[in-house]
Amino acid sequence: MALLDEGARGVYIISATPFTDDGAVDWASTDRLMDYYVESGVDGVTILGVLGEAPKLSAEESEQFVARVAKRLAARGTPIVVGVSNPGLKLLGDFARRSMDLGAAGVMVSPVAGLRTDEQIYGYVESVVKELGSDIPVVLQDFPQLTSVVMSATLLNRLFADFPSLKMLKHEEAPGLRKLSKVRAAEKSGARSRRISILVGNGGIHLMQELLRGADGAMTGFAFPEMLVGVCRKFFAGDVDGAEDLYDAYLPVVRHEAQLGFGLALRKETLRRRGIIASARTRAPGPSLDADDHAELTHLLRRLERAVARAGAPAPKIAAE
Amino acid sequence: MALLDEGARGVYIISATPFTDDGAVDWASTDRLMDYYVESGVDGVTILGVLGEAPKLSAEESEQFVARVAKRLAARGTPIVVGVSNPGLKLLGDFARRSMDLGAAGVMVSPVAGLRTDEQIYGYVESVVKELGSDIPVVLQDFPQLTSVVMSATLLNRLFADFPSLKMLKHEEAPGLRKLSKVRAAEKSGARSRRISILVGNGGIHLMQELLRGADGAMTGFAFPEMLVGVCRKFFAGDVDGAEDLYDAYLPVVRHEAQLGFGLALRKETLRRRGIIASARTRAPGPSLDADDHAELTHLLRRLERAVARAGAPAPKIAAE
Amino acid sequence: MALLDEGARGVYIISATPFTDDGAVDWASTDRLMDYYVESGVDGVTILGVLGEAPKLSAEESEQFVARVAKRLAARGTPIVVGVSNPGLKLLGDFARRSMDLGAAGVMVSPVAGLRTDEQIYGYVESVVKELGSDIPVVLQDFPQLTSVVMSATLLNRLFADFPSLKMLKHEEAPGLRKLSKVRAAEKSGARSRRISILVGNGGIHLMQELLRGADGAMTGFAFPEMLVGVCRKFFAGDVDGAEDLYDAYLPVVRHEAQLGFGLALRKETLRRRGIIASARTRAPGPSLDADDHAELTHLLRRLERAVARAGAPAPKIAAE
Amino acid sequence: MALLDEGARGVYIISATPFTDDGAVDWASTDRLMDYYVESGVDGVTILGVLGEAPKLSAEESEQFVARVAKRLAARGTPIVVGVSNPGLKLLGDFARRSMDLGAAGVMVSPVAGLRTDEQIYGYVESVVKELGSDIPVVLQDFPQLTSVVMSATLLNRLFADFPSLKMLKHEEAPGLRKLSKVRAAEKSGARSRRISILVGNGGIHLMQELLRGADGAMTGFAFPEMLVGVCRKFFAGDVDGAEDLYDAYLPVVRHEAQLGFGLALRKETLRRRGIIASARTRAPGPSLDADDHAELTHLLRRLERAVARAGAPAPKIAAE
Repeated sequence: MALLDEGARGVYIISATPFTDDGAVDWASTDRLMDYYVESGVDGVTILGVLGEAPKLSAEESEQFVARVAKRLAARGTPIVVGVSNPGLKLLGDFARRSMDLGAAGVMVSPVAGLRTDEQIYGYVESVVKELGSDIPVVLQDFPQLTSVVMSATLLNRLFADFPSLKMLKHEEAPGLRKLSKVRAAEKSGARSRRISILVGNGGIHLMQELLRGADGAMTGFAFPEMLVGVCRKFFAGDVDGAEDLYDAYLPVVRHEAQLGFGLALRKETLRRRGIIASARTRAPGPSLDADDHAELTHLLRRLERAVARAGAPAPKIAAE
Repeated sequence: MALLDEGARGVYIISATPFTDDGAVDWASTDRLMDYYVESGVDGVTILGVLGEAPKLSAEESEQFVARVAKRLAARGTPIVVGVSNPGLKLLGDFARRSMDLGAAGVMVSPVAGLRTDEQIYGYVESVVKELGSDIPVVLQDFPQLTSVVMSATLLNRLFADFPSLKMLKHEEAPGLRKLSKVRAAEKSGARSRRISILVGNGGIHLMQELLRGADGAMTGFAFPEMLVGVCRKFFAGDVDGAEDLYDAYLPVVRHEAQLGFGLALRKETLRRRGIIASARTRAPGPSLDADDHAELTHLLRRLERAVARAGAPAPKIAAE
Repeated sequence: MALLDEGARGVYIISATPFTDDGAVDWASTDRLMDYYVESGVDGVTILGVLGEAPKLSAEESEQFVARVAKRLAARGTPIVVGVSNPGLKLLGDFARRSMDLGAAGVMVSPVAGLRTDEQIYGYVESVVKELGSDIPVVLQDFPQLTSVVMSATLLNRLFADFPSLKMLKHEEAPGLRKLSKVRAAEKSGARSRRISILVGNGGIHLMQELLRGADGAMTGFAFPEMLVGVCRKFFAGDVDGAEDLYDAYLPVVRHEAQLGFGLALRKETLRRRGIIASARTRAPGPSLDADDHAELTHLLRRLERAVARAGAPAPKIAAE
Repeated sequence: MALLDEGARGVYIISATPFTDDGAVDWASTDRLMDYYVESGVDGVTILGVLGEAPKLSAEESEQFVARVAKRLAARGTPIVVGVSNPGLKLLGDFARRSMDLGAAGVMVSPVAGLRTDEQIYGYVESVVKELGSDIPVVLQDFPQLTSVVMSATLLNRLFADFPSLKMLKHEEAPGLRKLSKVRAAEKSGARSRRISILVGNGGIHLMQELLRGADGAMTGFAFPEMLVGVCRKFFAGDVDGAEDLYDAYLPVVRHEAQLGFGLALRKETLRRRGIIASARTRAPGPSLDADDHAELTHLLRRLERAVARAGAPAPKIAAE
């Protein structure tokens, strides 16, 4: 499997971890989900992200999940990024190495919660890079909403200048549009020689603005990956308004699914309704939908079909509730 | 001026505080802004909210602002709610009483930052209600994104059951849709006899879902108050899809303006471009737009005009940049 | 092994997890440490606490650690409490059951970070109690400095009233003296019929005040467990001033070691200097001492010897640096 | 009045703001308190600190307080530092200028809550320095426990290198001993040419360690300022162990009073018992003592008298309860 590098662009979908109704990892749904992602045209799949319920999997389950996904995607040539964030540096390293052995193209790391100053964060990232060695490509996840670790553009520019194994920034600070521009500006000005890959998260809630500011695509979860793919393809083909028209048709659902924490339940339920995974179950403690939430989702998906039709885009496949 | 009561519904727009380019309160723009709000059909105006730069006004300026707005709106019969949150209980009470004397219909209070448990929050709200007496109607603001004070539906139901002078909940927790349903459910089930007014905030990012769950309207800032008014009117007239079609046309801008903190600069700049206020200036420390932000806003407003036209809604008045 | 119950009192020392200089679990030091705790007269040992580097051990290492400690302490009849806090409820349950099988007297659980309202916390503790069943005694850890989860006395009283398998409160909120009194008051007033065990943490920084307010002892780490034991014994024998004289002699070191996060490095180094563990190493990311820190500790330990001698207490065993 | 400069050392006591039982500022107690501070030998007095209830005073009261204290202390030549932290930069500047006009020697500023990255904090401090001009000496308060703003040694060194009007660091991060050493190290190594004044806070809980690491004294509240003065004088006269013996005699009370937030009530009550202020009242929302708290304080003060006698230090003046 080719390793992740700075040229990565397009859509790296953040994968849910499917469970059966009794809470076990659902391997059949996992396979179906991977197939669906590939059919949707994604450029990569990121598994075991911080919102992907990774901390609720045992070490054994995590490893099995990597192996299963790697096997499924190997044939299609779709690269896999594995979230390996961990409170312990050695555990992080061990799982990263095991994931690479199993066929991952790279790993994603989010600084541990509690880091505050530039020098604390720099020191932590430095220790991660050292632990992983120069051969494991790293996606640096910048998600202060969850970790409370805030990385300035200045700091990010230093980190990417100093550590070549950092290949990609998963940009998720919100609001964070100006930061993205500043990170790109450092490349244009020559302050950093290497152009890094920047994919954006947060469910794509600002995707068009981020593409216009220099993002290379999205690394995020969304129950309709084909929209993310379509938007990025149109955008990079130069059809900015076409991309944004498609995006705006989905925006009401993007906005709904972007609810922090709760969005995971919406995303899984939508994937279930679409026939891709068998159960919307999350592991405890985790969110689930009540009757009101179901009715609300039904309403929004019904409207989505109309909006997509109006935009002249391919109809999203949504089963009846 | 009639006092605020539980029957309040529709749109209570959160007003910006206009400044001149050198940082003084801009009284002419303030008048124009109030006139514009009234022309847009708002049901009330809320001034000196926590995001309305209230903490950056001197006590003297705050009082002058209340007096000016009260005078301007008195003739139109538009009720005013004044944000009076304050680290000191006595200062809060003094300013609330002064505001009522000047013609306010009620005051808005957000629990002081640092309160954590149900009993701490209950105790604080109790002390506020006691300080204000039974004659001053209170809007309880629930905005944990800013205060870190999280109020459960259970707690809110207790507070509204125990303190009759609490008339309205400004609902802003996010995600918070289920909480809204729970607060309403307590009324339907008879657990709380009084039906309170619930207006929603967060720039209206979930307005349609909130209306469908029982909200009475919005108390939020948005640079196009006529959209909020139109949506609420259609919704309460029974035209749910018409309301949501109008809403969705504006959603890309709603979403853009909902950026926490930075959104204030976007809102002021949009009001400036619309010819309503003279300067987009915020007081330091505060956000401002750079060239990229301006271009991005221009792009989104241009698309807004097209989307609104497509939705068959009245064209929003937007001057050239 | 007898199970933990509400009658637990005295000192349950929070054990460090000893590592060798290259970061492996140091089993010989672990045995020596357990022996030392027993010789010091502790009433129980708590392992794998949140500050005990538990999150940096693999699942396998954790289980081995429980097994090793259980075997070592079984002969002495010293009960073991195992910290089993975990982001996943099922993982928590699995490790708790495994720990009980290996001979633990009970488990300690801290609510997951992110819970805010009384009902969220209640719901989480309820789910834990349900997962563990009625046969596993639970210590509820109340440590908001680390988790940001704040439990009021009212909430604690409800939890202990509703869930009989909660046997002990590990009280660590700070400041939290009044809360301790309120939890005890609910028993005196009959509001809760069962008297629970309350042991205090925070390195014992307010131990005397807490004993006077009704605590049953301490569950905390401190490099001189014999002081904690001596203070509790004197106190429960009625010699309040004698207890406090002994305590005050150690207070400068208690205060020094109570530095949040960094205290772990001081505690391990002191245990190393005392000849109990072989290395002061913590796992990355973790604190360590520099030359200034070493000199400072030396200075404080030298003064400790004098203060203890002046108080007429048994000399603490401290090796030269 | 001479202006504050880098040579400031010794004890700058953080003054409480005395209120009467009905909540008004108590001017007679204010005078008595200032007299007491001077008699205790303090080198300066800091008023309207963040824990000194400053946010609960009206702008008018704040100015009156500065004027009263300035008048009282002018005759003794004791310099005054005024806390001027404010959410608005202009309000901060206005009050600082007014305070200097009234006779302050300098002002103290804490970065506004919410700043996270080095560049955000740097930018804010820069804007403050610019607003105040080069003539107003500034104490930079570093108190993340309250503000959540964490400043690294690297950042502090940059700030003090770049802005000459920053004269003193009020060091209060905890744990923060190593940071203090790093700030001093930058001077020894020549990385920063100017030696700044560093006074420490947190109730002096690590005062001796901080003096040994290069602090110039304390800027903190404590109900026995004579202890802080005695410790600093002995220390700077070279009697380290004598200083620490005196300190340790008071440590149980220092530790008790260091309870964040609640300590203010203890401090005021102790000053009241000592006959210095008339009422221990704090303004709402604020802490107060219940019967248990009173008994506990009595117990600790009784033990203090014995400990001080044993240490051969002058007896602290404590009236009967």
